[in-house]
Amino acid sequence: MDKATNYQEIIDEIFSSIKAEENNGQVAQYIPELAKIDPNKFGIYLQTINNEGFSAGDWNAKFSIQSISKVLGLSLAYKILGDKIWERVGVEPTGNPFNSLIQLETDQGIPRNPLINGGAMVICDMLFSHLNNPLPDFLDFVKQIGKNDKINYSEAIAKSEKSVGYRNIALCNFIKSFGNLENNPEEVLNFYFNMCSLEMTCQELAQTFLFLADDNFRTNEDKRILSMSQAKRINAIMQTCGFYDESGEFSFKVGLPGKSGVGGGILALHPDKYCIAVWSPKLNQKGNSYRGMKFLERFTTKTESSIF
Amino acid sequence: MDKATNYQEIIDEIFSSIKAEENNGQVAQYIPELAKIDPNKFGIYLQTINNEGFSAGDWNAKFSIQSISKVLGLSLAYKILGDKIWERVGVEPTGNPFNSLIQLETDQGIPRNPLINGGAMVICDMLFSHLNNPLPDFLDFVKQIGKNDKINYSEAIAKSEKSVGYRNIALCNFIKSFGNLENNPEEVLNFYFNMCSLEMTCQELAQTFLFLADDNFRTNEDKRILSMSQAKRINAIMQTCGFYDESGEFSFKVGLPGKSGVGGGILALHPDKYCIAVWSPKLNQKGNSYRGMKFLERFTTKTESSIF
Amino acid sequence: MDKATNYQEIIDEIFSSIKAEENNGQVAQYIPELAKIDPNKFGIYLQTINNEGFSAGDWNAKFSIQSISKVLGLSLAYKILGDKIWERVGVEPTGNPFNSLIQLETDQGIPRNPLINGGAMVICDMLFSHLNNPLPDFLDFVKQIGKNDKINYSEAIAKSEKSVGYRNIALCNFIKSFGNLENNPEEVLNFYFNMCSLEMTCQELAQTFLFLADDNFRTNEDKRILSMSQAKRINAIMQTCGFYDESGEFSFKVGLPGKSGVGGGILALHPDKYCIAVWSPKLNQKGNSYRGMKFLERFTTKTESSIF
Amino acid sequence: MDKATNYQEIIDEIFSSIKAEENNGQVAQYIPELAKIDPNKFGIYLQTINNEGFSAGDWNAKFSIQSISKVLGLSLAYKILGDKIWERVGVEPTGNPFNSLIQLETDQGIPRNPLINGGAMVICDMLFSHLNNPLPDFLDFVKQIGKNDKINYSEAIAKSEKSVGYRNIALCNFIKSFGNLENNPEEVLNFYFNMCSLEMTCQELAQTFLFLADDNFRTNEDKRILSMSQAKRINAIMQTCGFYDESGEFSFKVGLPGKSGVGGGILALHPDKYCIAVWSPKLNQKGNSYRGMKFLERFTTKTESSIF
Repeated sequence: MDKATNYQEIIDEIFSSIKAEENNGQVAQYIPELAKIDPNKFGIYLQTINNEGFSAGDWNAKFSIQSISKVLGLSLAYKILGDKIWERVGVEPTGNPFNSLIQLETDQGIPRNPLINGGAMVICDMLFSHLNNPLPDFLDFVKQIGKNDKINYSEAIAKSEKSVGYRNIALCNFIKSFGNLENNPEEVLNFYFNMCSLEMTCQELAQTFLFLADDNFRTNEDKRILSMSQAKRINAIMQTCGFYDESGEFSFKVGLPGKSGVGGGILALHPDKYCIAVWSPKLNQKGNSYRGMKFLERFTTKTESSIF
Repeated sequence: MDKATNYQEIIDEIFSSIKAEENNGQVAQYIPELAKIDPNKFGIYLQTINNEGFSAGDWNAKFSIQSISKVLGLSLAYKILGDKIWERVGVEPTGNPFNSLIQLETDQGIPRNPLINGGAMVICDMLFSHLNNPLPDFLDFVKQIGKNDKINYSEAIAKSEKSVGYRNIALCNFIKSFGNLENNPEEVLNFYFNMCSLEMTCQELAQTFLFLADDNFRTNEDKRILSMSQAKRINAIMQTCGFYDESGEFSFKVGLPGKSGVGGGILALHPDKYCIAVWSPKLNQKGNSYRGMKFLERFTTKTESSIF
Repeated sequence: MDKATNYQEIIDEIFSSIKAEENNGQVAQYIPELAKIDPNKFGIYLQTINNEGFSAGDWNAKFSIQSISKVLGLSLAYKILGDKIWERVGVEPTGNPFNSLIQLETDQGIPRNPLINGGAMVICDMLFSHLNNPLPDFLDFVKQIGKNDKINYSEAIAKSEKSVGYRNIALCNFIKSFGNLENNPEEVLNFYFNMCSLEMTCQELAQTFLFLADDNFRTNEDKRILSMSQAKRINAIMQTCGFYDESGEFSFKVGLPGKSGVGGGILALHPDKYCIAVWSPKLNQKGNSYRGMKFLERFTTKTESSIF
Repeated sequence: MDKATNYQEIIDEIFSSIKAEENNGQVAQYIPELAKIDPNKFGIYLQTINNEGFSAGDWNAKFSIQSISKVLGLSLAYKILGDKIWERVGVEPTGNPFNSLIQLETDQGIPRNPLINGGAMVICDMLFSHLNNPLPDFLDFVKQIGKNDKINYSEAIAKSEKSVGYRNIALCNFIKSFGNLENNPEEVLNFYFNMCSLEMTCQELAQTFLFLADDNFRTNEDKRILSMSQAKRINAIMQTCGFYDESGEFSFKVGLPGKSGVGGGILALHPDKYCIAVWSPKLNQKGNSYRGMKFLERFTTKTESSIF
């Protein structure tokens, strides 16, 4: 499906051409702390399952991975609770924006999928019920799969999000009103905002997601994280639901499972081949990184590495 | 990604086990002619890109492929008009049932994707404008890609659908009212109903879709149908939109691009490997073949051939 | 509630002041025949239950009363079928535009009220089932309550509406698909378009509606049309549903039961006092006569004749 | 419009007949404190503008007037801010249940009218910004128009509502997220819940609303509360919006402006004639008092005192 590829050459070439083009879109404005970021940051890191790495630009700068962290929360909940999680959250894409309350009302408090805000809150509620120390335990999990002790979240960003998170407060209380939240909305939201404030470099991000691309992934303690079937299913959800109401477009143009965040990051992966992280803070109208989408479209075209 | 596989053995095994289980669901009732079908028909055909075939049950009986034909209409329009088609129809999955008018109203007459009824009508409108003899030309196209002169549509079923197609008449006139239809709604609907009434056996269906699975596909006249990129994109749309509001579920459980029809057929394909057609008329609550879904879930699990 | 009033003086004064102000809005464009009307036509006629008449401007010119006729269709169905009509149509205002299909989908084919298009179609379907000669019988009814043999409909306008009525065709077939239509959608629509093409002068319109304002109304044959309770209930529906999604605004500013039409006419009435018809073709953004709304707001303020 | 009426006789007669019929419906369950009420309480009080009073049953027992208080909050805001209030809240009825977030999303945070929860919160936000001591000042206003120092709110009920008010917290934060709330959602909600916990007897309730029925109403200090036009407009809003998605039904069957509360109270008024309060805790499926609706329908039929 894929040509023997000189990844570095292709990355460099696309990186340069996009650098030379106009950098459109808007840095996310609604979280004050995120709005301060340099809009011209642009980094790429590709990590193969054979432990090769290829990079360009600001690949080694930390950024807020935001919603990309939802996949990590989901993975931990899936690991702990197995298929029981699907009783409280669906696996269907949604035709509406990421924080739509309309669909929740229609669906009686069951979020469509775990990658929209409401779904991630329900996942956080599960974790909050089943982890002894929710935040430290979650961070430990991420360090374990990333094989990296330096991963942390930003209190400043979490605090900034909380200060303006009225829509998310609405969403969480709405779900609670339907009975699909076990814990206090305030505590769940607190955990949710902290989780979304994870910071990583492109390299760390690509390496952290290897457990979903590599069937043979083991932690440093030689443990599997998810069964192969579970990992495939999370990839399937990223494919259909990873980009809000641009999920179809991403699938259509890029052809890889992936997840975006409003910090401008995108993680995509080719099962059995690689994980790739792209970061550029300006977002298109659907809330996904303008340059990130562009880069990945050209990348899978050049490498002929769409999964389709 | 895939184990060296004895497809026939696995097909036989799953076929037998499902045969032994209860056959739940309902044969589609709203089209009088379809409601007459024997609910216990059950056939499978798998065609590899290396020209091997594997089968079980009623694989050689003709059935109404219904909405599966929408992929064929889309392919022909994409071939003729290229990316211009995306000006009039989207590529996003929809959270709503297949004939929802709500989303059309929100989206001002631009159907979410070409595999829901409204989107297929817009595709039919394009074909109606650009083909000299819409129906014969469309049938010729299908015969060409299927390398099979015996494929035809059923006038009886088309007529039966027209006699009760109030919802589709509504949909088509609604799109016209937004200005997204060039031709007379009645003529477009006529073509649409005829297209949906295509009849194939499981074998014919699997073979007809090889052009989307095999990068090197050529017709008998040694012609490509679509560019590789176009074929991949149609697969991507099947992946996210092929099963109405159960598309996420299919992606999650089966992990292949595919398309279902209310006649009880499902076509799925593994790029670079195979096409598989399953047929069993009883539908689950979302309108997809009950046994077909079950078969394919077990099949990709056993063969470890999900694309994820 | 009402001061001893010199209606003529007040009408003249408001008429003059509005004539001197800018005539905003748009003549309805979507029906070709209606778009031809002189946008500066402006007429008023007030008819008291004591048989006095007061007028201004183009009160004696015929115009297309359009949706105002829905009240007449409703009255005839209510007279024939009594409260059975409420099994197939509601009495609740709708927050959506007049031809919204969204609400119909949510409400499973039961239109919210008889004064939106869908509701009027269901009423037409009832009349079509119960009248021997639907159109002539309906016209006879209107002539009888208007005590006026010269009332007729315009074939040219009906034909013009049919030629572009895709949204209404969609609506009617959609209702049929839910099973809430007994007859063929095409025949019901035909009757519906003819009904909406009734033409009257302001005087004729005001006089035709006296049967809803005057508890003691009798036809020339000395017959009641509706019971007092029935007439009050139709007035209540006009109050809450007569102006599409501007019904609250009209109730708030004018304070009378009434009904508008896209031809620019408005009929309002004060129970036990008068009927007033205003006509001015330019419509505001909600589809109601710009000058008509303005006139009536000032009129009930000056005369202190809101029913509240 | 109205027969010289023996109100007491009619009240007694209807009261007895309804007492003899089954008491259907459900006491509101979602507020723990309200759920404790005796479901068979049933009281009526009619107060004419000529200072006559007529009563039946438990007319002198205090009950929680709940949403009926929204009309009082609205009146105070209208008095203070005049027509500026309509920049932040509409006057249109809504086709959806009282706490629907869907419509708010469509309308970008502008609630449809001030009598649904969201609209009342925006009114509370205005009062919170403009009153020195929001709760005491509001209570003073109510005492002044009710000419009654004994009116108060129940802290126990307010507290009970706050403990389970997730849907309202969601609603309020949602409005804040659209920028249509000046103050902190928590403070606004606190005031809102206190306001809704006003307690009155049927007599107090009927007397408190006289200022909307009587054009010549003056407080003990001989002050008008609202201009006549303002009072009429509030009545108009009650007519179209006072009973959630049963507003049309109430208008249709009862024909008076009114407002219901989930405590089982209904206040209705006939301009220039009377105010009537009915209380019976069991609610129908739309959340309005089952016996209250029944009583008022029969009452306006017998007295022929619909405003239509």
